[in-house]
Amino acid sequence: MLKAYPGDVGDIDQEKLAACIAACFECAQVCTACADACLAEDMVADLRACIRNNLDCADVCAATGAILSRQTAGDGNVVRTILEACAAACKACGDECAKHSDMHQHCEVCAEACRRCENACRELLAAL
Amino acid sequence: MLKAYPGDVGDIDQEKLAACIAACFECAQVCTACADACLAEDMVADLRACIRNNLDCADVCAATGAILSRQTAGDGNVVRTILEACAAACKACGDECAKHSDMHQHCEVCAEACRRCENACRELLAAL
Amino acid sequence: MLKAYPGDVGDIDQEKLAACIAACFECAQVCTACADACLAEDMVADLRACIRNNLDCADVCAATGAILSRQTAGDGNVVRTILEACAAACKACGDECAKHSDMHQHCEVCAEACRRCENACRELLAAL
Amino acid sequence: MLKAYPGDVGDIDQEKLAACIAACFECAQVCTACADACLAEDMVADLRACIRNNLDCADVCAATGAILSRQTAGDGNVVRTILEACAAACKACGDECAKHSDMHQHCEVCAEACRRCENACRELLAAL
Repeated sequence: MLKAYPGDVGDIDQEKLAACIAACFECAQVCTACADACLAEDMVADLRACIRNNLDCADVCAATGAILSRQTAGDGNVVRTILEACAAACKACGDECAKHSDMHQHCEVCAEACRRCENACRELLAAL
Repeated sequence: MLKAYPGDVGDIDQEKLAACIAACFECAQVCTACADACLAEDMVADLRACIRNNLDCADVCAATGAILSRQTAGDGNVVRTILEACAAACKACGDECAKHSDMHQHCEVCAEACRRCENACRELLAAL
Repeated sequence: MLKAYPGDVGDIDQEKLAACIAACFECAQVCTACADACLAEDMVADLRACIRNNLDCADVCAATGAILSRQTAGDGNVVRTILEACAAACKACGDECAKHSDMHQHCEVCAEACRRCENACRELLAAL
Repeated sequence: MLKAYPGDVGDIDQEKLAACIAACFECAQVCTACADACLAEDMVADLRACIRNNLDCADVCAATGAILSRQTAGDGNVVRTILEACAAACKACGDECAKHSDMHQHCEVCAEACRRCENACRELLAAL
C-alpha cells in the first residue's frame, strides 16, 4: 500500500516503515491470541501479568500500526511518542512471555513477535 | 497461534478460521491506508464515501480479527453476527473502492483485500 | 458533536443515535475494566467466560461507537449489521455478568452497562 | 468501576485516574466525529491535517483509555509512555483544531476535548 500512496511519503525509510507496520499488526494479533490462550490454561491464576501485558501490548500495537499506515499531514511528535510506547509495551510483554516460554508455546511465539515488533519500532525511531 | 492454543478449539474448521483472522487484520491495515491515501488525493471531495467506508471497514475488521483470535468460552451468536457485520462492511467498502480502481491503485488493492475478507467471512459463516 | 455536524444527518432519530453512541463508549470502558477486575479475582479460573465476553463486547462496542459517530456517506447495511452484532455481544456479556452480580460488584455494574447498550442498539435498530 | 476493583490499585491518585480514563474515551469519540464532520465540509481539501490528527488522536486515546482501565499487574513504563503519546496526540490535534475553531463548531468542541485530555494525561503523569 505504501507504493500506492499518491503523495510524497517524505524522507522516512520506506522499507523500515513497511516492516514496522507489518510487525505491529502481527504483534496485535499474536498478543490477543496469547491473552486468550493464557486464559485457557489451568494455571491461569499464575498468568495474570502475562494476560495484562498481552492486552496492553495488543492495544498499543493496533494504534501504532494504524498511525504508521497514514502518511498524510502527520505530526512527528505523535509518531515518535507512539513508537516509544509501542517499544515499551512490546518489551514488557516480551519479557513477561519469555519467562514461561518453556512451558507455553503460545508465550514463546508471542515473545518472538514482541521482540520483532520492539526492534522494528526502535529501528524506525532511529531512522526518523 | 491456533496450534499453540492449550484447549479444544471445537468443531470449527481451523484452516478457514486462520484464513479469516489473517484476512481481517490485512483488511484493517489496507483500509486504514486507503482512507489516508484517498485523503491525499487532489479529488478528495469526490472520495468521501470511499473514506467513510474505509474507516468503518477498518473498525469492523479489527474487532472481528480480535474476536476470532479468541477460542475460550465464546458466544456463537456474537461470532456469527460480527462475521455478518464484517462481510457487510467489506462488501460496502469493496464495492465503493471498485468504482475507482482504474484511477487509484490504492483503491484497487483495497477492493481486493475487501473481497478476500468478505469471502473469508462468508466461508467461515458457512462452516460454523 | 451531532449538532455540530455540517451536513444533513438524514432521517435518523438524533436523540436515539446520541444515546446509543454514549452507551457504546460507556460499555466499552466498563467491559474493559470488568475483564481486568475478573482477572484480579481469586476465582479467576471460574470467570473465564466472563472475561472472554467482556473482551469481545468491548471490541464490538468500540467499533460500533466509532461507526455511529460518523454521519458522512455511510452504508445502511453496515450500520444495521454492526448494531445487531453489538446487541448480541451486549446480551451475551450482560447475561454472563448477571450470573455473578451478587458476588462481584464489577459484574453488577457491567451487566447494567451491557443492558443499557443492548437496549440502545435495539431502539436505534427499530428506528432506522 | 475503579471502586469495584477487587485488588489494590496501588498508590495512584484514583480521582486523577478516573478523570483521565473519562477524558480519553470522550476525546476518542469527539475526534472520531470531528474527522467525519471535517470530511463533510465543502473545504475538506483544506482540512486534511485536521482529519489526520483526529484519526491518530482517536486511536491513541482509545488505547490509553483501555490501558488505564486496567489495574492488574501492569507495567509502569507502558503506562508512562502511552500517557506521553496521548498527551502528544491531544496537543497536536488540539492545536490543529484550534486553528479553525472560529469556522467550524466541531473543531471548537474537539479542541476543548483535546485540551481536557492532554491536561488529564499530564496531571496523571505528574502524579505517578
